[in-house]
Amino acid sequence: MQGDEEMRVERDSLGEVRVPADRYWGAQTQRSLANFPIGGDRMPLAFIHAHALLKRVAAETNMALGNLPAEPGQAIVRAAGEVVAGRFDGHFPLVVWQTGSGTQSNMNVNEVIASRANELLGVPLDAPLDRTRPVHPNDHVNRGQSSNDSVPTTMHVATVIAFRDRLRPALDGLGDALEQKADAFADIVKTGRTHLQDAVPITLGQVFSGYTAQVRQAIGQLDAAAGPLHELAIGGTAVGTGLNAPAGFAAGVAERLSAATGAPFRVADNRFSGIAAHDAMVGFSGALNTTAVALRKIANDIRLLSSGPRTGIGEIRLPANEPGSSIMPGKVNPTQAEALAMVAAQVMGLHVAVTIAASGGELELNIAKPLIVFDVLQSIVLLGDAAASFHQRCVEGIEPDRERIALHLGRSLMLVTALAPEIGYDAAAAIAKHAHAEGLTLREAALASGRIDAESFDRLVDPATMTGE
Amino acid sequence: MQGDEEMRVERDSLGEVRVPADRYWGAQTQRSLANFPIGGDRMPLAFIHAHALLKRVAAETNMALGNLPAEPGQAIVRAAGEVVAGRFDGHFPLVVWQTGSGTQSNMNVNEVIASRANELLGVPLDAPLDRTRPVHPNDHVNRGQSSNDSVPTTMHVATVIAFRDRLRPALDGLGDALEQKADAFADIVKTGRTHLQDAVPITLGQVFSGYTAQVRQAIGQLDAAAGPLHELAIGGTAVGTGLNAPAGFAAGVAERLSAATGAPFRVADNRFSGIAAHDAMVGFSGALNTTAVALRKIANDIRLLSSGPRTGIGEIRLPANEPGSSIMPGKVNPTQAEALAMVAAQVMGLHVAVTIAASGGELELNIAKPLIVFDVLQSIVLLGDAAASFHQRCVEGIEPDRERIALHLGRSLMLVTALAPEIGYDAAAAIAKHAHAEGLTLREAALASGRIDAESFDRLVDPATMTGE
Amino acid sequence: MQGDEEMRVERDSLGEVRVPADRYWGAQTQRSLANFPIGGDRMPLAFIHAHALLKRVAAETNMALGNLPAEPGQAIVRAAGEVVAGRFDGHFPLVVWQTGSGTQSNMNVNEVIASRANELLGVPLDAPLDRTRPVHPNDHVNRGQSSNDSVPTTMHVATVIAFRDRLRPALDGLGDALEQKADAFADIVKTGRTHLQDAVPITLGQVFSGYTAQVRQAIGQLDAAAGPLHELAIGGTAVGTGLNAPAGFAAGVAERLSAATGAPFRVADNRFSGIAAHDAMVGFSGALNTTAVALRKIANDIRLLSSGPRTGIGEIRLPANEPGSSIMPGKVNPTQAEALAMVAAQVMGLHVAVTIAASGGELELNIAKPLIVFDVLQSIVLLGDAAASFHQRCVEGIEPDRERIALHLGRSLMLVTALAPEIGYDAAAAIAKHAHAEGLTLREAALASGRIDAESFDRLVDPATMTGE
Amino acid sequence: MQGDEEMRVERDSLGEVRVPADRYWGAQTQRSLANFPIGGDRMPLAFIHAHALLKRVAAETNMALGNLPAEPGQAIVRAAGEVVAGRFDGHFPLVVWQTGSGTQSNMNVNEVIASRANELLGVPLDAPLDRTRPVHPNDHVNRGQSSNDSVPTTMHVATVIAFRDRLRPALDGLGDALEQKADAFADIVKTGRTHLQDAVPITLGQVFSGYTAQVRQAIGQLDAAAGPLHELAIGGTAVGTGLNAPAGFAAGVAERLSAATGAPFRVADNRFSGIAAHDAMVGFSGALNTTAVALRKIANDIRLLSSGPRTGIGEIRLPANEPGSSIMPGKVNPTQAEALAMVAAQVMGLHVAVTIAASGGELELNIAKPLIVFDVLQSIVLLGDAAASFHQRCVEGIEPDRERIALHLGRSLMLVTALAPEIGYDAAAAIAKHAHAEGLTLREAALASGRIDAESFDRLVDPATMTGE
Repeated sequence: MQGDEEMRVERDSLGEVRVPADRYWGAQTQRSLANFPIGGDRMPLAFIHAHALLKRVAAETNMALGNLPAEPGQAIVRAAGEVVAGRFDGHFPLVVWQTGSGTQSNMNVNEVIASRANELLGVPLDAPLDRTRPVHPNDHVNRGQSSNDSVPTTMHVATVIAFRDRLRPALDGLGDALEQKADAFADIVKTGRTHLQDAVPITLGQVFSGYTAQVRQAIGQLDAAAGPLHELAIGGTAVGTGLNAPAGFAAGVAERLSAATGAPFRVADNRFSGIAAHDAMVGFSGALNTTAVALRKIANDIRLLSSGPRTGIGEIRLPANEPGSSIMPGKVNPTQAEALAMVAAQVMGLHVAVTIAASGGELELNIAKPLIVFDVLQSIVLLGDAAASFHQRCVEGIEPDRERIALHLGRSLMLVTALAPEIGYDAAAAIAKHAHAEGLTLREAALASGRIDAESFDRLVDPATMTGE
Repeated sequence: MQGDEEMRVERDSLGEVRVPADRYWGAQTQRSLANFPIGGDRMPLAFIHAHALLKRVAAETNMALGNLPAEPGQAIVRAAGEVVAGRFDGHFPLVVWQTGSGTQSNMNVNEVIASRANELLGVPLDAPLDRTRPVHPNDHVNRGQSSNDSVPTTMHVATVIAFRDRLRPALDGLGDALEQKADAFADIVKTGRTHLQDAVPITLGQVFSGYTAQVRQAIGQLDAAAGPLHELAIGGTAVGTGLNAPAGFAAGVAERLSAATGAPFRVADNRFSGIAAHDAMVGFSGALNTTAVALRKIANDIRLLSSGPRTGIGEIRLPANEPGSSIMPGKVNPTQAEALAMVAAQVMGLHVAVTIAASGGELELNIAKPLIVFDVLQSIVLLGDAAASFHQRCVEGIEPDRERIALHLGRSLMLVTALAPEIGYDAAAAIAKHAHAEGLTLREAALASGRIDAESFDRLVDPATMTGE
Repeated sequence: MQGDEEMRVERDSLGEVRVPADRYWGAQTQRSLANFPIGGDRMPLAFIHAHALLKRVAAETNMALGNLPAEPGQAIVRAAGEVVAGRFDGHFPLVVWQTGSGTQSNMNVNEVIASRANELLGVPLDAPLDRTRPVHPNDHVNRGQSSNDSVPTTMHVATVIAFRDRLRPALDGLGDALEQKADAFADIVKTGRTHLQDAVPITLGQVFSGYTAQVRQAIGQLDAAAGPLHELAIGGTAVGTGLNAPAGFAAGVAERLSAATGAPFRVADNRFSGIAAHDAMVGFSGALNTTAVALRKIANDIRLLSSGPRTGIGEIRLPANEPGSSIMPGKVNPTQAEALAMVAAQVMGLHVAVTIAASGGELELNIAKPLIVFDVLQSIVLLGDAAASFHQRCVEGIEPDRERIALHLGRSLMLVTALAPEIGYDAAAAIAKHAHAEGLTLREAALASGRIDAESFDRLVDPATMTGE
Repeated sequence: MQGDEEMRVERDSLGEVRVPADRYWGAQTQRSLANFPIGGDRMPLAFIHAHALLKRVAAETNMALGNLPAEPGQAIVRAAGEVVAGRFDGHFPLVVWQTGSGTQSNMNVNEVIASRANELLGVPLDAPLDRTRPVHPNDHVNRGQSSNDSVPTTMHVATVIAFRDRLRPALDGLGDALEQKADAFADIVKTGRTHLQDAVPITLGQVFSGYTAQVRQAIGQLDAAAGPLHELAIGGTAVGTGLNAPAGFAAGVAERLSAATGAPFRVADNRFSGIAAHDAMVGFSGALNTTAVALRKIANDIRLLSSGPRTGIGEIRLPANEPGSSIMPGKVNPTQAEALAMVAAQVMGLHVAVTIAASGGELELNIAKPLIVFDVLQSIVLLGDAAASFHQRCVEGIEPDRERIALHLGRSLMLVTALAPEIGYDAAAAIAKHAHAEGLTLREAALASGRIDAESFDRLVDPATMTGE
């Protein structure tokens, strides 16, 4: 962007700025680009596209309300539509670490749409600076809006869509895959383990039904948390009062956003809190956190159950997707589960960042909006992608090692639990301890105790029955 | 508890243990007491009482199902009722930092109830060890249960009740108090502030309506998150399979718990996940986290708005509850808001602990149950108490400083925003900047610009109108 | 504390207050007690005692500087000494969730010392309110100080002492115990595991040497982080300027604190940052966080290595301290490791609370001091106690299961790694895979491959040699 | 990368894979690319370059030890040098969310270097698959190493260099800039504020000296925490035992790394803990967290002190870098401070992710290495860039508003503190309260009290003297 690049001159309320000649952004975007050389995280395209959609429906609404003439209006609608479609993805260079209101990203969207709309109306990018432009980024594209309401509105819209399109289907797919395994493994009785210590029997299907339930509960929490995200701050403008927004504007925008996305957006009952705070985003981040907790637990269990293959638990086998070690030939590792576990840890950390950022707002404006939407979208993408990959490249290929499962089940002393209702806890405990100390099987120790006869033992201590299946 | 204290001897499956003669707990509690001299946080009484309630309804259910004779059964019911009523609060000495299953606390409850039930049946605490006791902690009090299902069940019950009785009313009260202030302050037009910088006008009532909305949304998130807490793992016993629990036991317990508490508990569809994971608790902790975010924002705003009294914003006045400084005479500080802000930070931290602990479960059992329930109950108590105190000792006494508010409003340059739709953003910006640079009022600068006449200015720039009220 | 309790009347700058007749605290403490009925966490005695010590040396220093007459001075010294010694522990009823400066706890200390000093000087607690008291809490006990410098000073002193006396010895003991195991297990060659998958051999001694190194590195980080805690804000008074503190006061206090505690305290170069921020506490909290990470890793490993006893890894055996299950007779669980793992999670959460609280300070004063010192002291106590208990009740009793270790070692295919330098990675990988697929031993598969002869195999694939010991 | 792109065939121990014809990576990289379509965060180039540097010095060391012939060795050295120089930056496509050991990134480096080295030795990328390649990624480039030691080694090297080159200079610059302001503002006496309430005077220079001290203490914590990062796990290979690494290899690598970077790297005393855990990284992350706390406090203070310009504190003025609002013309916001505050929150969140990830390691290998190094490097970059930008675009341009400062100072009642040593705390408090209630100046109220005469008042209540300067 430097050096001998061709430049043109743009102007804003602070003066003139040189901008790369072929970029559709304007003076304020360029200032931000120069003023915030911080890291490399750009505002996500999911946010940009949703923002441009908002601009499109805002122009439509303004026109419908007689608040914007057709000439700039139609051009804005078309230009914004092109941004939504991804035609200008290279024209949004701003990083997340900018002003806390996201004003500069709002202006980036306003400027690119204005430039493109002006071009559509016959004023090209390289027109002389003193030539009148029919479309002004603030006066027309931003009409009826402030960054303070358009950015929170976009945060909600982008989050709702990303959740719906990228995370929810992945979790549904994972839940279904786990359920299929639960069904397929319904008859496989195995040793249960609590405290990582041998416990009473459980079926492998029951184990997977637990995972299924966790994923389904995570979906339930996400769905519930997504509810408040459908309330939009639009129409609040600068501080929530709606100054300079025409009557009917907010409702019209919400209606058109709903029509365009298929999601039931509505105007928030209270827009002051929707601008000054982001509790709905925090709540959704909390549900992402729960999802991360659930997936990390599942990923860790899969790693434990597949540990070995020869000196661990080794009761399931995972697909061998790649060589596991650069030094140990033939090693295969549970890499999908590891990636998922790392993603979960990252999401937990991002949740803390969102929490801190959201609690730090002051008076009429929360000033950590870019961080909040960036981290939430990032968590959605990471959880969605990792869940899908884990589903396809790990869960689907899981196979039980029936031989090893049977071997373990035969060894466990905790089948003794089935005797307790008959002979009492203390007597049962004595049997288990005796077996452990002497290296006996449970049956041997039980019969030796004289507390139970062989027939009763065989009737009571039946692993399959003990699982209740 | 040491030294020349009088002791008696108790016994469990590992052997004999000396126990203080007047304590109703038994051998396993005593072992835990000796084995975990870690910090001073005891398992909360809210947890103990809920656990004893579970024991009572479990005995009732067992009797109804023919799974427990009336003799031990009735005594257990009565003894457990006494524990619920707080008569034995001094007999639960175990700390949180024990086994991760909470087994030792379960046994503490089992042992105290068994001791008391035996006493009721004529076998006193100091009966010889070889005398037969009609009630056994495991075989009777714990009948149909394992720590692995009774502890998670109690976690849910205790959380639901503590939320309902201690936090929710406090938040309702705070929300109502804030709403009353919103109504009372509806006509007070003041300077809005975004980025801590002067912005367009807002009413003080609108500001408080935003706080009200935040508190109400927090309540909404908590209510939603409490839903899954009504699903109980009871009946799952050791690993979720229900081994040793009679048919009908779980449903009977859930029904009796509902009757006893008035909360609609039900048996979880999947009990494997309710024992191996605590996603419902994590989700509720997430809603507590959102509540903390909301309250911290409100507390900080109150501190900002009352800053001064002479060299800050100073637009509201808080009650002077105590001298503020040990060295600066006459100083009064926003101490209730500070306590609330600290509580919020603590809750955010405890949420992270819960997240980490919950994600660390393995296979058939999460082994951080005591931490999870302790931290969640602690957050409920802290938020509830701090919200109530903030409500009563701060919010109710908030008074506006109308003089100062008027002074500030008259000075702000951001009223210029009302001119933008008329003369355009760029011209309006030039007027504001000119006023700022020259120390002029906005009106002076606007008229000097020649872009607007006095009549139009006075019509457009009317703070009250600008707030939309 | 209310009801028919006998009360006396006290007075502060806001008026009169009724105080329980037998309590040494005064009006401000009583106000705080009434104003902050939030949770049950009292300011820790470690903080109270350190604060009283500060009061003692402040009085000594004031006397030495001619800034305090001997009459109140000597009595303050004696009274403060009694508080340090624990004689008045029941007179500090304030909770953590109070004003963010800790002013009320400072006044509690001032008031108790003043009351006791007055008593020593012949004015009992129940003297009429209009009787002259020779010692005033603010004018004499607080002389030369403000809460704003005395609280941060006490935070540092209490943390340094608690670390030195409660955490560091526990970590030293744990490190030594782990090292002894490392030595004792030096000759036990076992299967290494990476990704929870079988890997090349390692000795059990090497494994424990890693734990030892972790504990020692944690100690190193704590020692380094404790350095800045020796810098004290004392002498800064209200905002750091030292208003009302006599020349030489700060140095005199630091010197006397050093003499009294044996720790090398000194006056901070910059006291503004020591009052407005608590970066030294955050840094120390960070080292506690690292310690928690290290201990959680060790605790989890011990749980994994002892998993089983029959269907897990089971290469080590832990002491059986208590019955492990309320339903499964004879079960023994790694409870000490679980308690330690929970403590570690809690410390990580408290670290986040400290981080949030510390970053929320404004201008001349951080207003989350009680939270910060409470959470740091809590983490010190929890880590110290849990490490000591883990050391004594778990680590010391760890025994290897040599039979099982040998069995595992013989099965692992990853000994193939020793062949790679000889026959290349790809050929070695093929051998391991062939063995895995066919259920062969590694030797069988290697010889079958024709890439290596028996003699070379036996020379290269020697587990003991492979560990480098 | 798919579609009609030209492809070639590569092979690893699992079989054949199609790779884009012009990419230097091989089969294992390609597998990982296909297996982990998770998010878009690639492994940072800072990590890749450091890894390639390690490969270069490993080859040099192997050659020096006679463990690698000159032919592959020299080519590896040259190829690795080109990677270090950034010539192959487009050939490292793998994301962070891969196997937790980072094995795939290690293989990516091995493969690119091998491909390039083979090319240098006359075997081009598109040579037939059966043509012998003189350089093998595992057997030669990875010689003497495993991912398990080379990845942790690279984590440390990359972190040390990024800290030294990107963060430390930025903090030094910021510290110096703040110190210059402290000097420049040394004579400006202003109102201090504690609890956001008016307090005793302080100079603006003293305020900035506090910020300077915070930045310098952060640097001190970072320097201390960087110490353990100089210890390298190299030579430990797969589990820390050093299997397949020749004697002298580790020391040779550490020495050459030191020579190449100028940083004093050394071989870790215990390499088991350096592979199985990452406590040194956690400790450094903790110091980054402290730095974030310090910078967030400073950023927030700058926002508070510049609040207004007309209805806030407004005692300093910040540079106007860009228009502040899309709707409020002429508004200027503290955007650099906001970006810095957001970055700080992000770093706090990433610290939690690092903590969780690091505590989740098991047995001989921590399996969250990519997350840990990614988040730590990200935090370094964000803090470094944001600190530099804040320094250059905000701090340097800060100007005091002397008029407003004087106005505030004249109004504050807390100058009364200077009277307390003379007339006692209670009498002074009464004066301040009287002034506050009646709207008097402090002098008026003091004289009216009859407790002090005019001359004494003027002598004692001198703001400049009160600051101690």
